[in-house]
Amino acid sequence: MTLVLGGARSGKSRYAEGLIAALPGPWLYVATAQAWDDEMRERIAHHRDRRAAPWETVEAPRALGEAIRQAPAGRPVLVDCLTLWLTNVMLDEMADLPGEAEALLASCAAAAGPLVLVSNEVGFGIVPENALARRFRDEAGRLHQRLATIADRVVLVVAGLPMILKGDPA
Amino acid sequence: MTLVLGGARSGKSRYAEGLIAALPGPWLYVATAQAWDDEMRERIAHHRDRRAAPWETVEAPRALGEAIRQAPAGRPVLVDCLTLWLTNVMLDEMADLPGEAEALLASCAAAAGPLVLVSNEVGFGIVPENALARRFRDEAGRLHQRLATIADRVVLVVAGLPMILKGDPA
Amino acid sequence: MTLVLGGARSGKSRYAEGLIAALPGPWLYVATAQAWDDEMRERIAHHRDRRAAPWETVEAPRALGEAIRQAPAGRPVLVDCLTLWLTNVMLDEMADLPGEAEALLASCAAAAGPLVLVSNEVGFGIVPENALARRFRDEAGRLHQRLATIADRVVLVVAGLPMILKGDPA
Repeated sequence: MTLVLGGARSGKSRYAEGLIAALPGPWLYVATAQAWDDEMRERIAHHRDRRAAPWETVEAPRALGEAIRQAPAGRPVLVDCLTLWLTNVMLDEMADLPGEAEALLASCAAAAGPLVLVSNEVGFGIVPENALARRFRDEAGRLHQRLATIADRVVLVVAGLPMILKGDPA
Repeated sequence: MTLVLGGARSGKSRYAEGLIAALPGPWLYVATAQAWDDEMRERIAHHRDRRAAPWETVEAPRALGEAIRQAPAGRPVLVDCLTLWLTNVMLDEMADLPGEAEALLASCAAAAGPLVLVSNEVGFGIVPENALARRFRDEAGRLHQRLATIADRVVLVVAGLPMILKGDPA
Repeated sequence: MTLVLGGARSGKSRYAEGLIAALPGPWLYVATAQAWDDEMRERIAHHRDRRAAPWETVEAPRALGEAIRQAPAGRPVLVDCLTLWLTNVMLDEMADLPGEAEALLASCAAAAGPLVLVSNEVGFGIVPENALARRFRDEAGRLHQRLATIADRVVLVVAGLPMILKGDPA
């Protein structure tokens, strides 16, 4: 399991796709994005255009742990991205964030095949004035710490270039 | 002296506490937080719950240089965190930021025992619209640069994992 | 060609100037800043005060590719900084950002002498509420990725300390 962190437009998705594409296909792409406006639709299209077969796509705006658990055994899985999933769960008043997070961590720990998770590092700015943004930042940071503990490899991508935080440098 | 930088919820406090807790106690915890609202009270409690004896706590929302200077000789000292102290000083109209910063730097340079300083790296976002936030970001950045010059070790924590910026990697 | 990334007040300009100043002069400083308010005027003055002869300064708030292309052959060139240039181009309704970016990349790829480019890493915060800020963040991220591809060396500066992302560590 690899956790790929990076800022906005850091090239983290491209880097993560490269990790999976270096393995024999078919590959499973777990998409967490929900297109709730034009800007989002454009971003999704931009990412989708970069992927050709042998990618299969599963949409999992929520219930991400379940989506990972249901991946065919041994299939390389790319989840892009955790911050959108976290946004979806936090914006859904019926959702149970602690429960969903536990399910995600359990699925990651139990994954038999290669699993790459992409997420935005969002904690390096000024404290946001918006309370929801502050809570989001806290939840994202806690989630990253917990995932980093169980990950074999953690990478921070800056300007398309990987910095290895955990695991084999090569 | 070690400077531990990290984003929000990056695990920087936990990492810094681990550095001190690896040394023989008792340890001195210099807390800079002021509980001015419920959110802050909760954060303080969250951090405090993680520390057991042999931690002694000194509150230093301001006059941080003096608090460090008055630590018993040779006692390992953890300061958590510089950004809250900087906030307190900047929000206090009577405070003399340049003077307080000089006192802090002098105390750090003169510290006889192990000293670990925790601070938020806040400069990696979009330029804030709020003028005070911009000034805060500038002051924090300048302070980090000056402390990094005199520190033996500088560490950036991301997702609980340390990246060594200065000093021995091991 | 070296790309120097860093947060606000990270010491990236000082680090970049040190790279150029280690080479035989005269050196060319390509300034992209436009002083549209007092805060900006102060920042420009702060940077200018640090530079003595043998620095020559060329102002290039736009048309940055052209300014780099017109540098005397073999002259060490420092561009500080790309994010201000990007801001200027994005705020100018008549400007052609894709064209200007292509011209910049072409000039960088064709540069005969040492070239150091400074830019702000701005993608590590919460998604900005302002649409222009989001677009700026996206454009900056894309530009950094493209420049990093052609750069010999990419450095991230934190608290005045360089982390080598690409190129020889020493």
